[in-house]
Amino acid sequence: MKNVKLIIQYDGTNFSGWQVQPNARTVQQEIEKALSKIMKRPIKINGSGRTDAGVHALGQVASFCEEFSIPIEKIPVALNSLLPQDIAIKEAIEGSVDFHARYNAVGKKYIYKIYNKEIRNPLLRNYTYFVSKPLDIEKMKKACDYFIGEHDFKGFMASGSSVVDTVRRIDALKLYEKDEILTIEVKGNGFLYNMVRIVAGTLVDVGKGKIKEEEVPMIIRSCKREKAGHTAPPQGLYLAKVFY
Amino acid sequence: MKNVKLIIQYDGTNFSGWQVQPNARTVQQEIEKALSKIMKRPIKINGSGRTDAGVHALGQVASFCEEFSIPIEKIPVALNSLLPQDIAIKEAIEGSVDFHARYNAVGKKYIYKIYNKEIRNPLLRNYTYFVSKPLDIEKMKKACDYFIGEHDFKGFMASGSSVVDTVRRIDALKLYEKDEILTIEVKGNGFLYNMVRIVAGTLVDVGKGKIKEEEVPMIIRSCKREKAGHTAPPQGLYLAKVFY
Repeated sequence: MKNVKLIIQYDGTNFSGWQVQPNARTVQQEIEKALSKIMKRPIKINGSGRTDAGVHALGQVASFCEEFSIPIEKIPVALNSLLPQDIAIKEAIEGSVDFHARYNAVGKKYIYKIYNKEIRNPLLRNYTYFVSKPLDIEKMKKACDYFIGEHDFKGFMASGSSVVDTVRRIDALKLYEKDEILTIEVKGNGFLYNMVRIVAGTLVDVGKGKIKEEEVPMIIRSCKREKAGHTAPPQGLYLAKVFY
Repeated sequence: MKNVKLIIQYDGTNFSGWQVQPNARTVQQEIEKALSKIMKRPIKINGSGRTDAGVHALGQVASFCEEFSIPIEKIPVALNSLLPQDIAIKEAIEGSVDFHARYNAVGKKYIYKIYNKEIRNPLLRNYTYFVSKPLDIEKMKKACDYFIGEHDFKGFMASGSSVVDTVRRIDALKLYEKDEILTIEVKGNGFLYNMVRIVAGTLVDVGKGKIKEEEVPMIIRSCKREKAGHTAPPQGLYLAKVFY
């Protein structure tokens, strides 16, 4: 038996997210289908976590434990030849015996991309959040700093989520402009449901002047979803890296 | 009557190209439909030239001559609100009385993007030509220079094309790498059918060592389609700018 770790890239546009669900096209399902074909028996994989419909991944991680006939380094080529074009396996590595993509994850890095121009860019419609109103980047940068550290991020979780422990640690949150795109990069030990999108939406609201940057600490402390900004749309979000 | 020049950006992925054709979704058709709705009568536009299915545009130009009720500078916002998300009007300018997007064009600039890595990138599948074999960039750069100048490019035209005068002038052809993408930029006074894609395919064949860079002048002089390289796929091609 070998424990295999897959590094996966995908374009979330035409998927109903990561997780297997009936009557929907999901990334996990496509990979399991291809793996089962190669292994000639049903295979289930464990992802590091879900991603929503429209959300992309540059470095999603999934693991599975199986008896192997082919060398592990041959898995990407074999899988990629069977997978649809909007998924690619970038790497397959042997994990330790007890490796599990979800339980062993100690942190994640997400990227959120914003296209901030007056007129939309059709080529970026599925890959950025289009904001036509001018954003005050300096204010947004200042707001970033308040998120860093360990906080109860209950107010930055989609309402209806049932998670009890809502304390998370954000290790880094930065914002930069490159090639007309405003990128938010966030690293932390874990993220609540929709947390990155609500942080991004809050930063956009700061950029628009709807929320004052110095109000952010109070918003975090309030633990109230309605105090935080809007939930930025899925297509700007990329799961960039999972740390172990 | 006013002559209006539209600067248009589009994602060619889900279009059967620029030109109106029955039972197909085309860019021209979508713009004419939206314009006709605004003007409350059927409007026809003239593009600077066609683009094929899957080919993108950053700066396609189209013109039309009409009686106007709304100020020209309001056209982009009005049109964009009616157009699908994969088209955007970037600008509308008043042209001279006799302006015609196709007849008055004196040159064009195209961009061709290649993703040259061992494993495909799902997020770029519709926006680049994926070449997994390593390319010798230096050889490709040397090959570029041979195309510059006025030549009979008959060998770089899709076979079956009926154009008689196949002499064109390439003013600039350069190649550079940025963010994992290899970009070919070409400017000229006009391009034959599939010419940019055949030039790009020939450069890729030079990069792979299938064609020697010093053979390029002979290939051009031969005027034979079969001597030139393959036709690179449409999704790597962008009509970047039309010159007047």
